[in-house]
Amino acid sequence: MTHPAPALDIRSDICWSDETSVTVLGRDLCEDLIGSVDLGTFAYLLLTERMPSEAEAALFNAALVSLVEHGVTPNVLATRMTYLGAPESLQSAVAAGLLGLGTRFVGTIEGSARYLADGLVALGPEATDDAVRAEAARIVAGFREQRAHVPGVGHPVHTPVDPRAEALLGLADRLGFPGTAGRLVRAVAAAASEASGRHLPVNVTGAIGACVVLLGVDWRIARGMGVIARTIGLVGHLREELAQPIATTVWNVSDESASRHLRG
Amino acid sequence: MTHPAPALDIRSDICWSDETSVTVLGRDLCEDLIGSVDLGTFAYLLLTERMPSEAEAALFNAALVSLVEHGVTPNVLATRMTYLGAPESLQSAVAAGLLGLGTRFVGTIEGSARYLADGLVALGPEATDDAVRAEAARIVAGFREQRAHVPGVGHPVHTPVDPRAEALLGLADRLGFPGTAGRLVRAVAAAASEASGRHLPVNVTGAIGACVVLLGVDWRIARGMGVIARTIGLVGHLREELAQPIATTVWNVSDESASRHLRG
Amino acid sequence: MTHPAPALDIRSDICWSDETSVTVLGRDLCEDLIGSVDLGTFAYLLLTERMPSEAEAALFNAALVSLVEHGVTPNVLATRMTYLGAPESLQSAVAAGLLGLGTRFVGTIEGSARYLADGLVALGPEATDDAVRAEAARIVAGFREQRAHVPGVGHPVHTPVDPRAEALLGLADRLGFPGTAGRLVRAVAAAASEASGRHLPVNVTGAIGACVVLLGVDWRIARGMGVIARTIGLVGHLREELAQPIATTVWNVSDESASRHLRG
Amino acid sequence: MTHPAPALDIRSDICWSDETSVTVLGRDLCEDLIGSVDLGTFAYLLLTERMPSEAEAALFNAALVSLVEHGVTPNVLATRMTYLGAPESLQSAVAAGLLGLGTRFVGTIEGSARYLADGLVALGPEATDDAVRAEAARIVAGFREQRAHVPGVGHPVHTPVDPRAEALLGLADRLGFPGTAGRLVRAVAAAASEASGRHLPVNVTGAIGACVVLLGVDWRIARGMGVIARTIGLVGHLREELAQPIATTVWNVSDESASRHLRG
Repeated sequence: MTHPAPALDIRSDICWSDETSVTVLGRDLCEDLIGSVDLGTFAYLLLTERMPSEAEAALFNAALVSLVEHGVTPNVLATRMTYLGAPESLQSAVAAGLLGLGTRFVGTIEGSARYLADGLVALGPEATDDAVRAEAARIVAGFREQRAHVPGVGHPVHTPVDPRAEALLGLADRLGFPGTAGRLVRAVAAAASEASGRHLPVNVTGAIGACVVLLGVDWRIARGMGVIARTIGLVGHLREELAQPIATTVWNVSDESASRHLRG
Repeated sequence: MTHPAPALDIRSDICWSDETSVTVLGRDLCEDLIGSVDLGTFAYLLLTERMPSEAEAALFNAALVSLVEHGVTPNVLATRMTYLGAPESLQSAVAAGLLGLGTRFVGTIEGSARYLADGLVALGPEATDDAVRAEAARIVAGFREQRAHVPGVGHPVHTPVDPRAEALLGLADRLGFPGTAGRLVRAVAAAASEASGRHLPVNVTGAIGACVVLLGVDWRIARGMGVIARTIGLVGHLREELAQPIATTVWNVSDESASRHLRG
Repeated sequence: MTHPAPALDIRSDICWSDETSVTVLGRDLCEDLIGSVDLGTFAYLLLTERMPSEAEAALFNAALVSLVEHGVTPNVLATRMTYLGAPESLQSAVAAGLLGLGTRFVGTIEGSARYLADGLVALGPEATDDAVRAEAARIVAGFREQRAHVPGVGHPVHTPVDPRAEALLGLADRLGFPGTAGRLVRAVAAAASEASGRHLPVNVTGAIGACVVLLGVDWRIARGMGVIARTIGLVGHLREELAQPIATTVWNVSDESASRHLRG
Repeated sequence: MTHPAPALDIRSDICWSDETSVTVLGRDLCEDLIGSVDLGTFAYLLLTERMPSEAEAALFNAALVSLVEHGVTPNVLATRMTYLGAPESLQSAVAAGLLGLGTRFVGTIEGSARYLADGLVALGPEATDDAVRAEAARIVAGFREQRAHVPGVGHPVHTPVDPRAEALLGLADRLGFPGTAGRLVRAVAAAASEASGRHLPVNVTGAIGACVVLLGVDWRIARGMGVIARTIGLVGHLREELAQPIATTVWNVSDESASRHLRG
């Protein structure tokens, strides 16, 4: 005797479709979205469940644009290496590159967005410079206690500032967003620099952390903004790999170099 | 004795950076792109190496928007299931979902873009209706000979037309793009319907195939447009999974259902 | 003017090959390994850089065997869903399933192996029962202080014990391995049960943590044992999916269930 | 008004568990498998639904062992690059490496297993040398007609033979397996060499294709044998990366080399 098939009771409110329409978060995809909204605006809707204001759309697009490219990075190499072995599966090559967006690089968006979100709740909207500095000191002390890097500050190449961070924080100001998030991330960078004795500017993920808070994106999915942006960059690298491949050379030279001491 | 370290000689033209700037395809990221271009426009630059015209930006954004969401699909389930086991790695959950964008669903963009690109070269810019119909018949016959589905036509739910395909092809017309790509994909749908005896409308991936050709995107990376779009959708589903989870229920009910005949 | 190509200086000692041979960790693959060692034994060599004793090979194989299968789990669903969309890429379907082996399920091997390794160093080889209990209490207190679950104990289905854990710990005893690792993980389960007021038996990942320590595997790659084992299970599920598919049904029922409240 | 939750009716026969036991393909995991079977034997059970004979277990283990390692390959680089960015997710680093096991490298197992399986059906058990040669010529002609490489023959490094292929085919003979599969794959290599004018020996994936057929594994999951084997190799490389890292060097030198022409 077999038990009857159990019922599956779940719910999703994002999208449903019937014969003649597709509805996304209450809007008709074909009538109201295709041809009317740009990709960044639509992404904002999916990440927050509401349409952005003009300023929000501008800042959100800018934050994504700032993360799309940074040269031949480890994830670009993972993507191009994967494409070499599985050129029939472009999606796998992109996925391979995304898998490295963990705690060391893009994942720091999450960390900075989290402490900025918590800090702004603690500070309230009208915080004095002293209050911002005190909160920054508290944040930095928390990371140092756990012997952890402060996410969102410092960069191995860009100095004295990360120009992407400056571009984003400047844009947020010009668009009229409240200044406390930017002030706090700058104060964190200053406090981290003082505590470590090294110059640690706000970096791009710190500035995006500030944007995440200003835009009302949940910090728990903030890393997703980096994932979206890097997906575009990785497809761009596959376009170039087709015309001007590097994967085979990197492989052959790496294998030769790695094993040459074994060859006598 | 060990051999000397070999030289690595490769080249990439996409992006490089120094202390104070990041340059992407010859443009200053911080001065000229952040705050000036939307995400879709920047993606177009990376996929084609040139900035789009206004019409191109509009059609490219629309094509991406049309693919972002389609409900609780197999890749949404893969993403949500993965997040259940590895909530610390949002990027892995998204990557898991992307891995299913193979030949059966989104990958058909590639197939339709390819035959449309080849077909338009054969037809030239001023093709008569008869020539378009003949080319469509030739394309459909080619797939039938290999016993393969014609990519870009037919849909299990949407009928009599896929409304996303109509929205995209209509937009391309309104934006002033040449009509041959749209005429050819409609002729292919008609020829496939006649050959199979079933009504097969142009579907969203067929329409995107036409957009790919109109936009000058290489068909070999056209699947990447689906990958970019679905990445956004999958991050949206993780936002919802946090607030309104379904993965544990799908798992438990599936496991119970699958093994109930073994439980006696 | 272009700079000369830079030298790449790296080293790997695992494997190199020439025209007539492949050498793995100093052994001739074709002469000394193929046909002479089973897969588990070879895996042990790669994970520890040395060949196992007979007892080590037996325990290592057993630990892997215990993790291969546990029914229609979230990662099985991710794998089968991915295969539905990309049947041409079996490797992608398996990879999608592996991506969920994070902190919530298989990753707990790492956590239990780590505290057991540290605990055994603290206890030394001849620890009294009192010393073991005190160390267990210290370990459990550490996790409770961070409000974290103690890895390696408790199971939602198996009770009063996880039979896989008992099988592994019993085998280690019969094979003559020192008993302290097993005693410590049992003491941790007892301490965690007392502290939480719930019965928390040693589970399979706790027992594997003990095996990891007994076998001299670095806890930082211990999760890799779960990854190897589950890879086999996932390929097994794809074999079944070909003959007796479930993915389409899970998808259709999930989508119908998830959106039925939107359909009015 | 909402529709009632739909029933989910699926079936899997691989594994189920209750409070005190786990059953895999009809066997008690804890009583009859853990401690009794090696990993390769258990993998054979999952891939074929039956326990192997002693000879089958030996050949299956050997086939897997032959694929575990081949130095610093593209998938090793993808794995190590991914680990650099996400050291908290070992499973993601391994998955990234697996994603490149597509049509160009390991996936050729599938192709050779397929033509050998079909060829043996056509030849029957007692084929003459002439019949084998004719079938091989037919197979090679089929690939050449599609302008495709013949899978399973040729190797860029190993010459005059791939020693792994010889080890496997020799082992199959010594274990008493019927000789037709080996004769056919050797005849295919000879026919491909003659047709192309280049010396193309049976390579490791061709020999594994023969093993797949001899072992009764479905060719559609044969690529899974490569996936299982390489998973072990990739975990081994992560062990080495922890002690003797190469990823950062490969990244830095690649980025420097790739962009040096842009730096003026």
